Amino acid sequence: MAEKLRGAAVFGQSGGPTSVINASAYGVIRTALDAPEITNVYGMAHGIVGMLNDELYDMSKEDAGELELLLNTPSSALGSCRYKINGDEDLKKIHEMCVKYNIRYFFYNGGNDSMDTCNKISNYMEKVGYECRVMGVPKTIDNDLVGTDHCPGFGSAAKYIATSVAEVHQDAYVYDTGAITVMEIMGRNAGWLTGASALACLSDSPPDLIYLPEVPFDMDKFLRDIEAVYKKKKKCLITISEGAQYADGSFVSHAKVSTTDGFGHAQLGGTAAQLAARITKEFGVKTRGIELSLLQRCAAHLASQTDIDEAFLAGKSAVEYAIAGGTGKMVCFIRDSKDGKYHCRVEYEPLSICANAEKKIPKEWITKDETYVTQEFIDYVLPLIQGDNKRTQENSLPRFAKLKKIKATI
Amino acid sequence: MAEKLRGAAVFGQSGGPTSVINASAYGVIRTALDAPEITNVYGMAHGIVGMLNDELYDMSKEDAGELELLLNTPSSALGSCRYKINGDEDLKKIHEMCVKYNIRYFFYNGGNDSMDTCNKISNYMEKVGYECRVMGVPKTIDNDLVGTDHCPGFGSAAKYIATSVAEVHQDAYVYDTGAITVMEIMGRNAGWLTGASALACLSDSPPDLIYLPEVPFDMDKFLRDIEAVYKKKKKCLITISEGAQYADGSFVSHAKVSTTDGFGHAQLGGTAAQLAARITKEFGVKTRGIELSLLQRCAAHLASQTDIDEAFLAGKSAVEYAIAGGTGKMVCFIRDSKDGKYHCRVEYEPLSICANAEKKIPKEWITKDETYVTQEFIDYVLPLIQGDNKRTQENSLPRFAKLKKIKATI
Repeated sequence: MAEKLRGAAVFGQSGGPTSVINASAYGVIRTALDAPEITNVYGMAHGIVGMLNDELYDMSKEDAGELELLLNTPSSALGSCRYKINGDEDLKKIHEMCVKYNIRYFFYNGGNDSMDTCNKISNYMEKVGYECRVMGVPKTIDNDLVGTDHCPGFGSAAKYIATSVAEVHQDAYVYDTGAITVMEIMGRNAGWLTGASALACLSDSPPDLIYLPEVPFDMDKFLRDIEAVYKKKKKCLITISEGAQYADGSFVSHAKVSTTDGFGHAQLGGTAAQLAARITKEFGVKTRGIELSLLQRCAAHLASQTDIDEAFLAGKSAVEYAIAGGTGKMVCFIRDSKDGKYHCRVEYEPLSICANAEKKIPKEWITKDETYVTQEFIDYVLPLIQGDNKRTQENSLPRFAKLKKIKATI
Repeated sequence: MAEKLRGAAVFGQSGGPTSVINASAYGVIRTALDAPEITNVYGMAHGIVGMLNDELYDMSKEDAGELELLLNTPSSALGSCRYKINGDEDLKKIHEMCVKYNIRYFFYNGGNDSMDTCNKISNYMEKVGYECRVMGVPKTIDNDLVGTDHCPGFGSAAKYIATSVAEVHQDAYVYDTGAITVMEIMGRNAGWLTGASALACLSDSPPDLIYLPEVPFDMDKFLRDIEAVYKKKKKCLITISEGAQYADGSFVSHAKVSTTDGFGHAQLGGTAAQLAARITKEFGVKTRGIELSLLQRCAAHLASQTDIDEAFLAGKSAVEYAIAGGTGKMVCFIRDSKDGKYHCRVEYEPLSICANAEKKIPKEWITKDETYVTQEFIDYVLPLIQGDNKRTQENSLPRFAKLKKIKATI
């Protein structure tokens, strides 16, 4: 058993928000506040940027009830960032901060880029011989992290997408006239979210065609696919990933490729509008492009309770594992369904495995005609969207956590 | 008291769907099926188009449990249309259908255009001396019908908009970098829905600026307004109506003005994307345009229970009023809050008053700087969004009504 390590803990949130990233925050913060080994709990203002700028919040100053409301508060309550660690200079600064605040536990909540950040910090601390246990807490609606069965954040986004597609289906099929509807869903290189639109079949309101980034986009085939559906139904409901790209790697949405985020990724979007214009031109049919945009990653009102519970578990487990001596790992979920029911347990994988890699939909879960996902895909996603969340409301509107965010001093 | 009139009833749905139009359908159908005076209950396939094409469904053939699920099924379960009555030829055909099926009760659920259709039918029946009681049931997310305090459908859309804006606010304010977000909300000439975004203030997550179609749009002022907010916050969250137009009456969104619906109204949308591009150009700041599109009118999962109850009441009242001898009227809501609490009761106004007219936000409910709504506006909307709906789910996904839609025969 590892030696007991006394010191402060710091927690940060990074990358695009999800509906449940704050549930992980609550898992980390609550568990750390309650742990006798942990002397102080700090929150980074805007992730690692807060570490670099000496902007930490003292989490012990927060009201316990408000902290609990984090379970149903979307987005990143401490603020997020898209900052790429800039070599040893940044790492040195982070080390200095750890020394200054006697930080011995470092928890970082994010996706692949954030796990890379986390891994670099872990390696640096080891190199300079500063004892600090560094743990990654997974988070991404994209569900593309390697090493884990699924990611906190995905289930809630999937539930929002399946529900919204089912509802839009009711609307898109309502008129006696022809109508084509294109719904654009997030996911740069992995189609998990777009595939989740297939779950609308359980409401008898599925999309007719699904276009994933795993399949090279072919405009001619796309138009022929639509034509075939439209001939039969005078309607067609299409879901497509914002990351849909041609065989040569260029995005279907050219419009926004010029803008990039901090990691050099293109800012996508506009695919639905662009394709809707093309379809109207081709078929002369009223076509509507709908982009789910930010809504799909912050719709906490429709968060899956399973996802909330697991997000909390991920945060809590990271703290417990670090206190027990673990470091340099990301919390991972293992699906265990031997009795035919869904169970999820926690394991820990090296950060180096999780950093920067992307998990895509397996080929065998995409139908042969490449315009749908299989029943196996649906069976994989379905347990993750279960359960209505028990959100707090005031005036029938969401009551989010109100944090004081009091600056930590030493 | 009017003479008892025995005969069949017909019900149709028209115009853009809402989350609760089917709750009104259930109010009409259930009440009519239970009424001894009414011999048959028919549903029009795609509104008045079904009357013209002799496509009616026999509602008595439907399962009672499935009919009840209409309370939480969005969009128009019988199908909708955007068909403008084409003079006496159509009216003659509708009269023939009434004679054929012995229809003595005619219920039509829609907005201003549909009330016009209803009024023409009512007048024609009187002219040709055919006794048929014609009633309009109000429906529109736009809340722009004259003669009623508010419209079924508005409360649910308002709740979805306020909740979504609050959630997007959490996301839009998350990064340490500058960000401007423009959310486009439905409403051609009346800004009720866009104004409802202000209710996000009750979640401490309000939009910073609100642009209504009631106020002529001025691009220079718009950019100056944003600049003032951005200087203080490095963020700006804007809500704007799809119908925003310049002082000369031209729409801010030129892109889609060329496409028109069946009534000659321009199909709007694209305003957010267009303004986001302009803002990026002007300020060089990452700007995201989000169009709530169809989502806001079909998000039954977030429907207001108050709205569902009132939509049902509107349908039920129409039938009871007609059985009692009433005709040529639209069901209207009167707000009665003498005891300081919200109450809603039903009255009936002549169709001629409700047809084609549009009710806009009163000037005194718009702030002096023309970029917000007043507390009076918020107090008006708040009671209408109250109550979580008790929706039926399967697999944590919506369970919509499954109608058999069996063709009526005579």
